[in-house]
Amino acid sequence: MSAATPTFELFYWPTIQGRGEFVRLVFEEAGLPYVDVARRPAGEGGGPGAIVRLLEDDTAGTPPFAPPVLRVGRLRLAQTALICRYVAAHGGLLPPAEDDWLRADQLMLTVMDRVAEVHNVHHPLASSLYYEDQQTEALRLAPIFIAERLPKALGYFEHVLSANAAGEEQVLVSDALSYVDLALFQLVDGLAYAFPNALAALAPQFPRVMALHAAVAERPRIAAYLASPRRLPFNEHGIFRHYPELDPPR
Amino acid sequence: MSAATPTFELFYWPTIQGRGEFVRLVFEEAGLPYVDVARRPAGEGGGPGAIVRLLEDDTAGTPPFAPPVLRVGRLRLAQTALICRYVAAHGGLLPPAEDDWLRADQLMLTVMDRVAEVHNVHHPLASSLYYEDQQTEALRLAPIFIAERLPKALGYFEHVLSANAAGEEQVLVSDALSYVDLALFQLVDGLAYAFPNALAALAPQFPRVMALHAAVAERPRIAAYLASPRRLPFNEHGIFRHYPELDPPR
Repeated sequence: MSAATPTFELFYWPTIQGRGEFVRLVFEEAGLPYVDVARRPAGEGGGPGAIVRLLEDDTAGTPPFAPPVLRVGRLRLAQTALICRYVAAHGGLLPPAEDDWLRADQLMLTVMDRVAEVHNVHHPLASSLYYEDQQTEALRLAPIFIAERLPKALGYFEHVLSANAAGEEQVLVSDALSYVDLALFQLVDGLAYAFPNALAALAPQFPRVMALHAAVAERPRIAAYLASPRRLPFNEHGIFRHYPELDPPR
Repeated sequence: MSAATPTFELFYWPTIQGRGEFVRLVFEEAGLPYVDVARRPAGEGGGPGAIVRLLEDDTAGTPPFAPPVLRVGRLRLAQTALICRYVAAHGGLLPPAEDDWLRADQLMLTVMDRVAEVHNVHHPLASSLYYEDQQTEALRLAPIFIAERLPKALGYFEHVLSANAAGEEQVLVSDALSYVDLALFQLVDGLAYAFPNALAALAPQFPRVMALHAAVAERPRIAAYLASPRRLPFNEHGIFRHYPELDPPR
């Protein structure tokens, strides 16, 4: 293992996209090899047990609060936005000008705040309760999310895309794709899964956001990834869950 | 205005501590002059209108999603964790070794995630609804927060403090106070206001966290700030709200 090609090990739950998916997309677009540790067989050090062991390892400095965690040599790094940025820096997916790094950081954290909001729709009370045990609350929250928060979020990113007239390609920062565009892709992709009716009704108002989503999906490495078994399907255990009762026909 | 002493302008709601308070604490401990723009009279460009004008200004690059926002010359920076880090870098409150910067970033984002959780206790459904309109849900959530999330959060930071045996002073990263210690102070201070009964019952299990809180409060600049009119009192419009029904006697 040379310093130029470190081994990147991602620790994230092996059966969901979740927050780990934001990291996977950066690896895939960058073409950086990575080990998705918990998706390896338990007998080879994988499985959810690998995550538990990592979280409980007290010998490696600041422990992480929760997955995803990236391990690179002696570094253990948690927090999705930080991991994505770290991988992006190694994979040529930071905006080229340093002045733009803070803009990208800001947008990345704003995407992740929206991700937390989406999760909150089906789990308004507690991650430790089943959806069914907080469905009454979710049914009250979902229409508010769809009427207020969803258009606010999409409108914000539409606004950012409009304000960034830097290049021909429509991206959030600078004039070339960066890791934050991948994050916005994943946010929209998840919303399309979880709230297809609401998103279809709103999409015409946010053409730049929808175009960015489509353009990312067509990038060769992303398209290959999405078609591969490495891309886990969305399901009702992750962040973006499709419960028809929360997304009635418009 | 020279490059060495930029004018720092903080834009945040003038009547609450909220997320802006995390930024104010970094300025105060660093001894960096700053303008708390919206707390100036409306006739002098202050008041909440200053925030609205800033959010709607399309001429300054990537627009912010929400306050707090820091303006420094042409830079507009949103996201509390990023602003705190930026001010800390100018004010000598980053850990000295670059290797520790990522640790601090990770902890700062973990504090801010906890802040969002605390806000969620009294607003489980929507920021746009009054507490009274989601009190039923809050009453269901609060005992779960107190039983599960609060001890998990405090236990995490206790663990980080234990694992960091770097110096005599008990801090989260490295061997001297950094901006993340100020953030943990504010989290604990807010919890002590919002959930005094729950925190008092839990405090003996988390002596390092409580000692850090006490030590930060006694630092000369922080003590002077807390005693000054610049420190807004906690109230029931911010993140940390004291609703007795959510924090019953233990």
